[in-house]
Amino acid sequence: MRRIRITLSYDGTDYNGWQVQPDLPTIQGAIESILAEIESAEVKVEGSGRTDAGVHALAQVAAFSLNNPIPTRNLEKAMNRLLPRDIRILSAEEAAENFHPRFDATAKTYEYRILRAPICSPFERRYVHHHPYPLDESRIFELAKTLEGEHDFTAFAAADDTDALGRSKVRRIFSSTASRQGDHLIYQVRGSGFLKHMVRNIVGVLLEAGKGNIANLESRLKGAIPPGPTVPARGLFLVSVEYDPRKPPAAPR
Amino acid sequence: MRRIRITLSYDGTDYNGWQVQPDLPTIQGAIESILAEIESAEVKVEGSGRTDAGVHALAQVAAFSLNNPIPTRNLEKAMNRLLPRDIRILSAEEAAENFHPRFDATAKTYEYRILRAPICSPFERRYVHHHPYPLDESRIFELAKTLEGEHDFTAFAAADDTDALGRSKVRRIFSSTASRQGDHLIYQVRGSGFLKHMVRNIVGVLLEAGKGNIANLESRLKGAIPPGPTVPARGLFLVSVEYDPRKPPAAPR
Repeated sequence: MRRIRITLSYDGTDYNGWQVQPDLPTIQGAIESILAEIESAEVKVEGSGRTDAGVHALAQVAAFSLNNPIPTRNLEKAMNRLLPRDIRILSAEEAAENFHPRFDATAKTYEYRILRAPICSPFERRYVHHHPYPLDESRIFELAKTLEGEHDFTAFAAADDTDALGRSKVRRIFSSTASRQGDHLIYQVRGSGFLKHMVRNIVGVLLEAGKGNIANLESRLKGAIPPGPTVPARGLFLVSVEYDPRKPPAAPR
Repeated sequence: MRRIRITLSYDGTDYNGWQVQPDLPTIQGAIESILAEIESAEVKVEGSGRTDAGVHALAQVAAFSLNNPIPTRNLEKAMNRLLPRDIRILSAEEAAENFHPRFDATAKTYEYRILRAPICSPFERRYVHHHPYPLDESRIFELAKTLEGEHDFTAFAAADDTDALGRSKVRRIFSSTASRQGDHLIYQVRGSGFLKHMVRNIVGVLLEAGKGNIANLESRLKGAIPPGPTVPARGLFLVSVEYDPRKPPAAPR
């Protein structure tokens, strides 16, 4: 069987997130459904990670195994013809037979977009969190930086992010930057991995800090203060997923 | 009674156009419905012109009369609070009591956006016509210019654009320009007025020319050749509506 790696972009607005759920539209569900047509058999798709309901992706990575010998260029076209227009396959390529988009990922980058203009354009409404109220933005820029390094993010995980295996919630943040781009306050974070709701909770806390309600993130990280409000999904984009290019393509594990 | 002029922006995707229709979502209908709440009485809204189902507006102009003494700044806010997020009031201001957004308009500008990239991003899908196939774009740039001046646009009007009063279909085009902006082929046209489907029929004919099917627009204008395919509404934006600033504000007619 062939192993295919796809890079895809989606507008998450009308989906209940990545992961298949019975009777609800999901990204994984939409892809598995059209692959079943192409393969004439059930196809299981694995993603680099789940995105929550309403979260978008500029370049999510996923993989699946296929018997159909269709060339990858034609597979891309066939998938885009069958998929709804809010999910687009950017590329499909042959991968090592043991390629796993989640376990093999070495880093992920997310971006959160906050619109600071007084009015939110109808054309942006699905893709930004509109926050036109006063904020000490320089305070946000400064605090965002303090998240770089290794931290236990337990206090920034969703309340229901319980891990039966008791795995560590320590994550390494390679870069964490807030900046102003025109009318937008953009928070971009690149890290080894992310817990459920982690980016949206970080942004929630940064906004609280910008309002003057929080002096530093340490008490928040220590869980001494309960996490602030989770900001809306619509402002969040999975920007990219990275893999080690030196990893031997078909090494057994 | 006060006369209020509003400038508004909308994403036309989920509407059956500007004009009120029973049991169908329309822009005019949405605005009249929330104004009825503010005024506690029926309010009739007049637009600078109708936009078709699926057509967007960056800055449409409309007007209505109101007894409610609410300051315009608060009216803007109240309207935006009550309206769905795909319609935004950009400004509300006091106008001459006889201000009529259609009869008083001196020019309108429309823009049509064609995406030339191989894949249409999920985030653009509602706002462009995706045409990744070969086109002689320089031919389109050249022909677009030939529309400037005064022409009888009968052949570019919708088949059902019949005028019981037999009014002229001559319109003056002040500027007509196609250009390439990154991955986008943009057609922008400013004129004294536009017939139903006129811009979309012009773009349809320009695309035919780009495919090498039409040498000039004269035979098309003369109606010797039936109008080409009307391009999809999703790529069309009403950019702005102009009024004579020197016109005395409250002159009776």
